[in-house]
Amino acid sequence: MMRGTTVPDVLAFSNVTLIDGRGGDPVVGATVVVKDGLFSDVYPGPADLPADVKKVDGTGKYLLPGFMNGNVHLLDGIMMMGIGGVEYLARYEGSFPRVMQESTQLSLRNGVTTVFSTWDATEPILEARDQINRGEAVGARIFAAGNIVGMNGPFSPDFNFGARQSISPTFADRLDALFAAGVGGALTMMSEADARSALRDYIARGVDMVKIAVSDHLVQTIGRTSYLTFPQKWLYWMAEETHAAGLPLLSHTTSLQSLELAYEMGADVMIHPTWTNNLVIPDELIEKIAADRVGVGVQPMTDDYSGRLLSKGNWWGLLNSPQHVQNEKKFIEAGANLMIATDAGCTSHDVLADLGEDLHADRPWTIGEDHFTWIKALRQRGLSPMAAIQSLTHNVAEAYNKLDLYGTIETGKVADAVLLDADPLADSENLRSIVDVYKDGRRVDRDNLPTHALVTAPTGSPIPAL
Amino acid sequence: MMRGTTVPDVLAFSNVTLIDGRGGDPVVGATVVVKDGLFSDVYPGPADLPADVKKVDGTGKYLLPGFMNGNVHLLDGIMMMGIGGVEYLARYEGSFPRVMQESTQLSLRNGVTTVFSTWDATEPILEARDQINRGEAVGARIFAAGNIVGMNGPFSPDFNFGARQSISPTFADRLDALFAAGVGGALTMMSEADARSALRDYIARGVDMVKIAVSDHLVQTIGRTSYLTFPQKWLYWMAEETHAAGLPLLSHTTSLQSLELAYEMGADVMIHPTWTNNLVIPDELIEKIAADRVGVGVQPMTDDYSGRLLSKGNWWGLLNSPQHVQNEKKFIEAGANLMIATDAGCTSHDVLADLGEDLHADRPWTIGEDHFTWIKALRQRGLSPMAAIQSLTHNVAEAYNKLDLYGTIETGKVADAVLLDADPLADSENLRSIVDVYKDGRRVDRDNLPTHALVTAPTGSPIPAL
Amino acid sequence: MMRGTTVPDVLAFSNVTLIDGRGGDPVVGATVVVKDGLFSDVYPGPADLPADVKKVDGTGKYLLPGFMNGNVHLLDGIMMMGIGGVEYLARYEGSFPRVMQESTQLSLRNGVTTVFSTWDATEPILEARDQINRGEAVGARIFAAGNIVGMNGPFSPDFNFGARQSISPTFADRLDALFAAGVGGALTMMSEADARSALRDYIARGVDMVKIAVSDHLVQTIGRTSYLTFPQKWLYWMAEETHAAGLPLLSHTTSLQSLELAYEMGADVMIHPTWTNNLVIPDELIEKIAADRVGVGVQPMTDDYSGRLLSKGNWWGLLNSPQHVQNEKKFIEAGANLMIATDAGCTSHDVLADLGEDLHADRPWTIGEDHFTWIKALRQRGLSPMAAIQSLTHNVAEAYNKLDLYGTIETGKVADAVLLDADPLADSENLRSIVDVYKDGRRVDRDNLPTHALVTAPTGSPIPAL
Amino acid sequence: MMRGTTVPDVLAFSNVTLIDGRGGDPVVGATVVVKDGLFSDVYPGPADLPADVKKVDGTGKYLLPGFMNGNVHLLDGIMMMGIGGVEYLARYEGSFPRVMQESTQLSLRNGVTTVFSTWDATEPILEARDQINRGEAVGARIFAAGNIVGMNGPFSPDFNFGARQSISPTFADRLDALFAAGVGGALTMMSEADARSALRDYIARGVDMVKIAVSDHLVQTIGRTSYLTFPQKWLYWMAEETHAAGLPLLSHTTSLQSLELAYEMGADVMIHPTWTNNLVIPDELIEKIAADRVGVGVQPMTDDYSGRLLSKGNWWGLLNSPQHVQNEKKFIEAGANLMIATDAGCTSHDVLADLGEDLHADRPWTIGEDHFTWIKALRQRGLSPMAAIQSLTHNVAEAYNKLDLYGTIETGKVADAVLLDADPLADSENLRSIVDVYKDGRRVDRDNLPTHALVTAPTGSPIPAL
Repeated sequence: MMRGTTVPDVLAFSNVTLIDGRGGDPVVGATVVVKDGLFSDVYPGPADLPADVKKVDGTGKYLLPGFMNGNVHLLDGIMMMGIGGVEYLARYEGSFPRVMQESTQLSLRNGVTTVFSTWDATEPILEARDQINRGEAVGARIFAAGNIVGMNGPFSPDFNFGARQSISPTFADRLDALFAAGVGGALTMMSEADARSALRDYIARGVDMVKIAVSDHLVQTIGRTSYLTFPQKWLYWMAEETHAAGLPLLSHTTSLQSLELAYEMGADVMIHPTWTNNLVIPDELIEKIAADRVGVGVQPMTDDYSGRLLSKGNWWGLLNSPQHVQNEKKFIEAGANLMIATDAGCTSHDVLADLGEDLHADRPWTIGEDHFTWIKALRQRGLSPMAAIQSLTHNVAEAYNKLDLYGTIETGKVADAVLLDADPLADSENLRSIVDVYKDGRRVDRDNLPTHALVTAPTGSPIPAL
Repeated sequence: MMRGTTVPDVLAFSNVTLIDGRGGDPVVGATVVVKDGLFSDVYPGPADLPADVKKVDGTGKYLLPGFMNGNVHLLDGIMMMGIGGVEYLARYEGSFPRVMQESTQLSLRNGVTTVFSTWDATEPILEARDQINRGEAVGARIFAAGNIVGMNGPFSPDFNFGARQSISPTFADRLDALFAAGVGGALTMMSEADARSALRDYIARGVDMVKIAVSDHLVQTIGRTSYLTFPQKWLYWMAEETHAAGLPLLSHTTSLQSLELAYEMGADVMIHPTWTNNLVIPDELIEKIAADRVGVGVQPMTDDYSGRLLSKGNWWGLLNSPQHVQNEKKFIEAGANLMIATDAGCTSHDVLADLGEDLHADRPWTIGEDHFTWIKALRQRGLSPMAAIQSLTHNVAEAYNKLDLYGTIETGKVADAVLLDADPLADSENLRSIVDVYKDGRRVDRDNLPTHALVTAPTGSPIPAL
Repeated sequence: MMRGTTVPDVLAFSNVTLIDGRGGDPVVGATVVVKDGLFSDVYPGPADLPADVKKVDGTGKYLLPGFMNGNVHLLDGIMMMGIGGVEYLARYEGSFPRVMQESTQLSLRNGVTTVFSTWDATEPILEARDQINRGEAVGARIFAAGNIVGMNGPFSPDFNFGARQSISPTFADRLDALFAAGVGGALTMMSEADARSALRDYIARGVDMVKIAVSDHLVQTIGRTSYLTFPQKWLYWMAEETHAAGLPLLSHTTSLQSLELAYEMGADVMIHPTWTNNLVIPDELIEKIAADRVGVGVQPMTDDYSGRLLSKGNWWGLLNSPQHVQNEKKFIEAGANLMIATDAGCTSHDVLADLGEDLHADRPWTIGEDHFTWIKALRQRGLSPMAAIQSLTHNVAEAYNKLDLYGTIETGKVADAVLLDADPLADSENLRSIVDVYKDGRRVDRDNLPTHALVTAPTGSPIPAL
Repeated sequence: MMRGTTVPDVLAFSNVTLIDGRGGDPVVGATVVVKDGLFSDVYPGPADLPADVKKVDGTGKYLLPGFMNGNVHLLDGIMMMGIGGVEYLARYEGSFPRVMQESTQLSLRNGVTTVFSTWDATEPILEARDQINRGEAVGARIFAAGNIVGMNGPFSPDFNFGARQSISPTFADRLDALFAAGVGGALTMMSEADARSALRDYIARGVDMVKIAVSDHLVQTIGRTSYLTFPQKWLYWMAEETHAAGLPLLSHTTSLQSLELAYEMGADVMIHPTWTNNLVIPDELIEKIAADRVGVGVQPMTDDYSGRLLSKGNWWGLLNSPQHVQNEKKFIEAGANLMIATDAGCTSHDVLADLGEDLHADRPWTIGEDHFTWIKALRQRGLSPMAAIQSLTHNVAEAYNKLDLYGTIETGKVADAVLLDADPLADSENLRSIVDVYKDGRRVDRDNLPTHALVTAPTGSPIPAL
């Protein structure tokens, strides 16, 4: 048996208010039966249940699909864009899969049963994923992209190049190579044939999706130039290779031009399409993205939080520009397939202390809290409570083409669920009123998460043995 | 009368060996008559000359077209990529046109009567050009591109971003804006319509050609990623706008992908097409470029010099990679329209002193010596003496579509000429044996160049009054 | 005749209120006669004057000694401690004496007839001084220390070492050597005999005083460690050499320990003795300094200004700490020989623009305004209007042992004077109500100062010819 | 029983060649008996031994006192002066005592039974020391100074201040505070009374000796200025407090002036007194230091190694200057109490890889090899083989006033010994021919050292559990 879980044979939620993720009206008094890790039956009212079933009285409670997060970076990518990432990577090198699992445990404790890691060191994330899948570690289910194709590692200009002034080049090169995983910026300096072959090799490593850096990630040049990484014809064969392998295709874009290219290459999921160098996305493009049901992974921030950032001279506050807000609203109004995509990871105590305590609440990138913050921010943009729930469940699964197994509570699907004791349609903040979380039909032992704290352990703790 | 020149009514070179730039055999004993600043008559042998003509006895001498340099940066762009540019820009701000003129005077003293500035601060270069054209200042004739479209200024990541750690932001921003001239990297963050309009406005300022940053100029990321600046469809309308204005279109490329895009957009002149992240350019592309007579502005280095650089740990030596050399040879063998394109400027005493005296000889970027060094380096790659002369004259004019007036000694063309007293076909080093330089039919007073030394004045001199 | 001045044979101020600098009650209706550049007669009432005298009607006006500033850095030392100094030094190299003169012209325009430059590049400051003394340039009279013994140049850790990341080492080394003038930090690495000999050579260059870096100038380490530069026994022979040459001895101190050492070595003038790492100076030491009439060159800041700095995160605001203020007050209360010592210089437009317009008013280091700001700040600490005037005149002369010629209006002294039309004892701000300034008995042509603007010329102007 | 050791009741070395550390001729055929961790009997020839004694046949072998190293930094201080220290500190925070123990295990494996840590984080080094003393961890015996009084932590200007550009301030401040331990540079900014009180508190923490930063540790300013940390009168009371506590007083000096002050304050041990900014130490001072039997902890480098460093542009090679070598020779010739003082620590794989494999051999700072390298280097300066052995044993104990228990093989002393199988007087390299090491009378299980590799484990290993 896996640590931190309990395994009943059969489980039934009775007299529960079911919000199944499909967007319809809640079903009051429903019965939901779980067997062999799947939802085996869903009844709109009371139902006869076998004697050996473990009954969960759902009276006054709300059953939702397990939450999904369409975009996380379990090693905390945000942190690697600034100071603090150096120590983090040095401290946990050799333990990255465990840090990643710790991240997902923080999510799981708060209802997230599935995360899509759209950038993380490839080898460790696949190991972390496989260990969880094999039941060797607890955590939210991971689907992983590994590296973003065309992007370099944490000590490159894509992240914190300046750190190289202070750290060992051997260390920096080793980490950068680990993250680049053979499909970093070097691809742009290969012949087309070699680049395509490198992508194929990468896909063969077993990643669950492919994310393309359509535009650059040179945040330090913000406000100066926005580059494209690949010629358009390269994007087409990248899409071809990805889809040929049956994988979803994701785009990283930071400009209007790259967003157009991402659409043209056929991205299934767009990560932060609303970042367009503060250009308002033309209606026509919004509509095409909405019509094609492309996953729109926005990264909102509450107005209050961006205000607090800016008042402290923290440039991250600029992300919440009026144009960005307008883009968010346009996607909402167009009925696009909006999905949660927070970029969150498990931030170190030191970086949080640097930030200042008054910037902890509503920080969009602190895993575990991130999905609640996301909902709060998008509610300010006009997202309805029901649409919010769908963004957190159904829409993620739809975007990643995983509706067959995940995202809703329907017969035959994987029994990931969250039980609340306050109505999330009355107030989205009630999404926090978690009574229990179920993953693969098993109740999660939330009180014991994380199981082996590394990043969240007291500062200066040695790394604990497994 | 302009300072530094003498103006005869009519001038005739008699009994001279004429190497007219068209590539044919030298004509021994030729007579060349100059009138009103043009070559009025060219005779293969002796000719009757009017009484009032000022005769120049060409016996034992060689007459060649005035040299042209297809790519210079008169404010010394190379220097701005490293340390030393800060002081240079601070010291000469307010005097940039004079520094540019000083640069061209160093060229002119060594036979170069026309230079193409393919990157320089726009407003000052146009002023420097116009002052020379109006006879208010001495110097080689300037054709100017101003900024490279899509490129930022000297204190941006395109050059020396790190300098901003030490200098006034007000100063840095002012200089960056001066160089960007409205068509910097900000273009990539505009809507397509706004960007096109900005380019039109820029062309209307009176530049002589338009150079596009097809790829990035982020030298500090060399070895990591090579970016593209604009979507391909943008390149097409940039070409359209440029050609509609009757101007040559130049490309800045640093990768194989960007070189292909440059070809596809219809570049008339390609600056350093041989820099391809050390990929060998495919035969097919070489042949198309050669067939279309695109100006191929290579930037060679002698093997000896790159060896000296590398032995001192100077990364510029890496530019002379085996693949780069092979690209140079392939263009030569394909009979491409090879033209001189040195990137040279007037380097400060301090930067030269930093470099070390043993790296002064054969330095490719020291204006005045640059064209001789270029010839020396390309001769090592197999360029014939006659082809070398054409690269220095005819080919530049052809590439820039200026053969109607420049590049050869033919009746009706502008009377720019260099008189040598040793045979440049016997030994290309004899191109240094300059007896006299003529520009617009007037003998240049080479002994008094530069006329008002700024950069070449002793270190620490105050800026002299005009 | 010197530019910018007029030279009457004999001049007399009649019916003026005389505040002669000696601290006594003002004399209403006084007559002051100037002849041959000296005050030839001072009468408490009307006096018979020769026919050829040029009379200045002083009715309703106030005559004060020419102001003196006991501590300036004419090349703007404050600026060299941060960004902006690089461009300044690059731009004006070769013109330093002229920049220094421009600085003193800004002072002179505002009543300051004598300045003590206690740190400036030695050779240029001596040249600037001598040119003014010979009447070849206009400006306040300069007394110069040149370098601070033991301190390094602008691109050393004493100032802006980080700038060396961006600038030519040849340039940086040249400037550093110019400022170090043979008595920089290298002294600390010589044998005692060699160091003493270097100091003697330095004194022989003709400096007017000697300033010793008793403690370090490593502002970037503030809050961490405060070092001493020399062993105490070295300080004793430095004092010996200085006094043997008949020069005043100045101390640079930044800690309580170094202040004690400065007192023990016999400093005549103490620059910023109140900076003690925020330790309150013990009464006993205050009293000894007061009793010995050591010049106490404090550097106050108005509370309002430090508040504005701190609200913008500008660390300079920390200088105005409660302990620093207490030290100022203790010196005032002890009746110490308080003298103005502003550290001001002629700041570049760019650095001022960086600072922000709301930080221009009351900035203590902007020459020309600096002495008014100093008075304003010390008035907040309890300095009386009369004591303020003495700090600005008599006390400076006393500290530097120059009361024989300067600092008061008395028969036989140099005729430096300021004529006001509002009572500076009623309100110290009335020191700004300058009608005329006289230096060496000549009226200063204030309207034409500066005579050849360099630093204060519009940004980007070329350096004007003399 | 402690891991990694064996405990016989009584042990005897028979027929061994005894080199007892006192400097006399070797005794061939000696018998040395160990009981209760002490040398209980030393016989010049065979001796009757009890039946239960465990005999060690010393035929053909050489018995020496356990080696001592008078100056190590177990967390690798050298590394913290450059890049690489950041990752090291981040990785091992929380495990510092174990890293320190690993360092001493590398020493112990190579014969060093006692080390004097003259700079290391105070709390961890005391813990590491106590754990070894209590038998809870294996390692050489540690005597610890903790911080150097007046010196700041690893992210201060004393070490790698620049690292603060890239790391979390919370992390940096925490580490700096850990190292400063209340007696860092902040002392220089306290009143004298507060500073003295802070020193007393520090001594009360249980350090084994007190080391004073007489001069600065600002290596980045080398060649510019050499500072003093404290006024001379402070040094006197620091000596007083230290000696009153019965502890040895050590000096850190980097200049001739500070060396003189160190002598005057009464230092018992001088660390790197030969570093004098390349001034030759006057004979008189050398003689006084020798006469007083001050421990002279030189840090030599082989000429070959410094040559290799310099040929790679590595500035550390400059340490081996002609003047430094001359200082070493002068101390040898004066018969000073020369003792080994290597500054070595356990360097990370990454930093060693950065250095390049060709700079590994003879590197003076790699613990375990350091004492052999030290001997090799000083042999080049003229140290005799017997004097070399004494520097490695007797002299260290003498300098630290510990000859009562350590440093020689004499009855009643602690039974630390090294058994060699080649004659170290014939060739000092034979010191490497270690057969066995004994500490406290127990044979060290050298094959199992280190017991729990952290730093020497393969790169990227997670920290192992104890």
